[in-house]
Amino acid sequence: MKHESVGTVETHYYHFPSELHLDSGKLLKEVTLAYETYGNLNNEKSNAILVCHALTGDAHAAGWHQGDRKPGWWDSMIGPGKALDTDKYFVICSNILGGCKGSTGPSSVNPDSGKPYGLDFPVMTIGDIVRAQKDLVNHLGIGKLFAVIGGSMGGVQVLQWAVSYPGSVANAIAIATTARSSPQQIAFNEVARIAIVSDPEWKKGNYYFGNPPVHGLALARMIGHITYLSDDSMQEKFSRRLQNKQNYDFSMDMDFEVESYLHYQGQSFTRRFDANSYLYITKALDYFDISKNGSLKEGLKDVQTKFLVIAVSSDWLYPPYQSREIVAALSANGKEATYREIESNYGHDAFLLESGHLNYLISNFLSDVVVADIMKSEIVSIKKGLSIEETARVMYREGITHLPVVSEGNILAGIVTSWDISKAVALKYKSLDRIMTTDVITASPDESIESAAKKMEKHNISALPVIDGNMKILGIIGSDEINRLIGGYA
Amino acid sequence: MKHESVGTVETHYYHFPSELHLDSGKLLKEVTLAYETYGNLNNEKSNAILVCHALTGDAHAAGWHQGDRKPGWWDSMIGPGKALDTDKYFVICSNILGGCKGSTGPSSVNPDSGKPYGLDFPVMTIGDIVRAQKDLVNHLGIGKLFAVIGGSMGGVQVLQWAVSYPGSVANAIAIATTARSSPQQIAFNEVARIAIVSDPEWKKGNYYFGNPPVHGLALARMIGHITYLSDDSMQEKFSRRLQNKQNYDFSMDMDFEVESYLHYQGQSFTRRFDANSYLYITKALDYFDISKNGSLKEGLKDVQTKFLVIAVSSDWLYPPYQSREIVAALSANGKEATYREIESNYGHDAFLLESGHLNYLISNFLSDVVVADIMKSEIVSIKKGLSIEETARVMYREGITHLPVVSEGNILAGIVTSWDISKAVALKYKSLDRIMTTDVITASPDESIESAAKKMEKHNISALPVIDGNMKILGIIGSDEINRLIGGYA
Repeated sequence: MKHESVGTVETHYYHFPSELHLDSGKLLKEVTLAYETYGNLNNEKSNAILVCHALTGDAHAAGWHQGDRKPGWWDSMIGPGKALDTDKYFVICSNILGGCKGSTGPSSVNPDSGKPYGLDFPVMTIGDIVRAQKDLVNHLGIGKLFAVIGGSMGGVQVLQWAVSYPGSVANAIAIATTARSSPQQIAFNEVARIAIVSDPEWKKGNYYFGNPPVHGLALARMIGHITYLSDDSMQEKFSRRLQNKQNYDFSMDMDFEVESYLHYQGQSFTRRFDANSYLYITKALDYFDISKNGSLKEGLKDVQTKFLVIAVSSDWLYPPYQSREIVAALSANGKEATYREIESNYGHDAFLLESGHLNYLISNFLSDVVVADIMKSEIVSIKKGLSIEETARVMYREGITHLPVVSEGNILAGIVTSWDISKAVALKYKSLDRIMTTDVITASPDESIESAAKKMEKHNISALPVIDGNMKILGIIGSDEINRLIGGYA
Repeated sequence: MKHESVGTVETHYYHFPSELHLDSGKLLKEVTLAYETYGNLNNEKSNAILVCHALTGDAHAAGWHQGDRKPGWWDSMIGPGKALDTDKYFVICSNILGGCKGSTGPSSVNPDSGKPYGLDFPVMTIGDIVRAQKDLVNHLGIGKLFAVIGGSMGGVQVLQWAVSYPGSVANAIAIATTARSSPQQIAFNEVARIAIVSDPEWKKGNYYFGNPPVHGLALARMIGHITYLSDDSMQEKFSRRLQNKQNYDFSMDMDFEVESYLHYQGQSFTRRFDANSYLYITKALDYFDISKNGSLKEGLKDVQTKFLVIAVSSDWLYPPYQSREIVAALSANGKEATYREIESNYGHDAFLLESGHLNYLISNFLSDVVVADIMKSEIVSIKKGLSIEETARVMYREGITHLPVVSEGNILAGIVTSWDISKAVALKYKSLDRIMTTDVITASPDESIESAAKKMEKHNISALPVIDGNMKILGIIGSDEINRLIGGYA
């Protein structure tokens, strides 16, 4: 499979013809959204995918800007042959409302005053951010998006899309995210905001004609950065190595590599981000709660979108249970929702780094891989009618505790376990037929692997016999194989 | 069991007669340590327990200061009938070197200049902090401590004691701690320090005659506070409740209870703590690494102290694996070390809050509870010589998969499982004797429960038959019971 770049790209700007209505009741005039597109919109306008960026992202998700040394922030996922395959899909990414990378935000000029907004910028919500995106999507002539996808704060936008515009999104992929900001997430946002507003250069947000509050913004970023990594990944990356010294020098200066790294991350961030945007965007994130009357199920009841929800095992800022809550609420409403957890040490940052796992999961979700594509055809089974002794012998020889039982022509008749054998001895049963379970959970060859995986999870079993319409065993599909496949994508 | 207070107490001050040598090579003159004691030192001076406090603690661990509304910080653990039983033990707690609650630290007057030290205070290590404590213990006439105990940064002092003064500590109890500060711990300390030194009032540490850097110190404390709680406990404590409002007011002010709580915690902290002490103490913590040449085993090889290491399941700042590392390194050296993990949602703060669990674990460790004290006397077993069928029937009837086998006089002969039954059928064995395991792991009635628990953990089994010297079964001890007992302490 080829994995190519989308090549050189340019940012476009959409100037809204009319005012944007905000959840606060306020109106925002002369709104601009910066955006990029990759691939081509088909005649039916049915192949558009909207990518939503995280807290500090921008519209430049893929390809290269003229003269740049680095590609867009999700180049690993977007391009010919990648999960967001630009040979098939038309991919759109816009800088969010309130941002500072070409879209209208607190650093933009307020048309009423002729000066930058600063704290006169209205407080906005994730609903407002998505409403602005919807206007852009309308402007591009797209009535229904094939998919909306995003990680972290991009993921909350995905949820908001499915709730605000249920008829306008066919597929939704929410990664490393939550249905409502938790008190811990709010707490980390609040300390970051305090770091910014405590910087004397912040001047109540009116710093655009002086020095920006770089120390406060750098500290905010350093705090955030710790939460994006995991304890493990920091151990691997830094250990307790000292920076440019062999021994402690017993001064109050920095000693460790990890300190130096955080300082570097904080400082370089201040060159590309506006402090007031950080305040407004984290506030929108704090406000985010897709539940209704305290119920997540009720909040998601009108969703018409098929969901893939992906969490990262080591993500402690947006822990997996928060993704599982989303899937549980969708399922409780009878909606189609698949949960996948990536095994990764990278912590929250994995949504930007684990492109192998993500490409596999997302391309399967978007292209519907079925059981027959990955099932194993050789399986150990026993014939119906064997004695308890013969059955026990096969089980002992093969070292397995679960054995499918087949009749003539490989027709699935049941399944037997070592506990069944013990029971047979106790009750003096001689024949297999009296103890085997005949009500076997199975998969069909054209079933999606997501569906098969969900059955295994629900019934707490590790493999399913795959059968055709006549109950003939065609193969077996195991959770191990699915996990191996996911891990094996290069 | 009575649980009383030690009553009214007073802080004492020990003025060192000579200079204190520091790991940096510097000397510190005119050192004072503030300390309190509870209970009475016996004639043999063999009943002294040193309590080491955490980052922001002080010497006032138990009892009441005249007129105070709150008792000492670990009053739940220290007093008549409590784990640190003042009817039996002489308990000492001192404010650490570098602190600001009566012991010499950066806010103390530098005898050379007649002004507060500020940044002229020498950078110190956990080794220095413990060396000062050792001088105090010598001054009290105690050659060997019965125990040293502490949580968090108190726990690292416990480790340092066992390494620096191996002959001077009989028992060590280290709670929610680590053998070396991890890069994540260092990172959180560093952002807290940046918050302090970024406050314009900090003035390179020379703020003692003006306004102290309260904003920076409050922010440092807020960051720290988030790390002391768990995601779960914050959810329980705050949920997404708003503070003094029904709806978002779309301003940049605080909205949520969790924000208000953190602000309160930060502000009240500034009334009781010195910003420079925070800098110096976190630095000492960053430097802490008890390993030698990169090996924890080598670092702990000269320990002569019996260890109890306790971790908290939801502690993500000092995660349980860091406690297990300590126990693994001690065990690898053939030292006596027990690991216990408290199931608690409180996060790192559990070492101050879970007094029920801690009292049970610690009093058992200090007083040596044995298996006979808590074993169950009624057990299901079968007689030796039964047929496979009879054995299977008992197993099926009782619904259990593991069954002890006894001969005449309740002498333990072996153990049999449902897998053994299946194997017997396969190999056409008729008699129990051919399939049962005769090499059974057992406990003795006078064995410590720690030792029994460790056997179960090592062999991955959930219960042990308890036998006397003649292999007679006296009872059974299960990990469930031990855990229930731990949870059941009131």
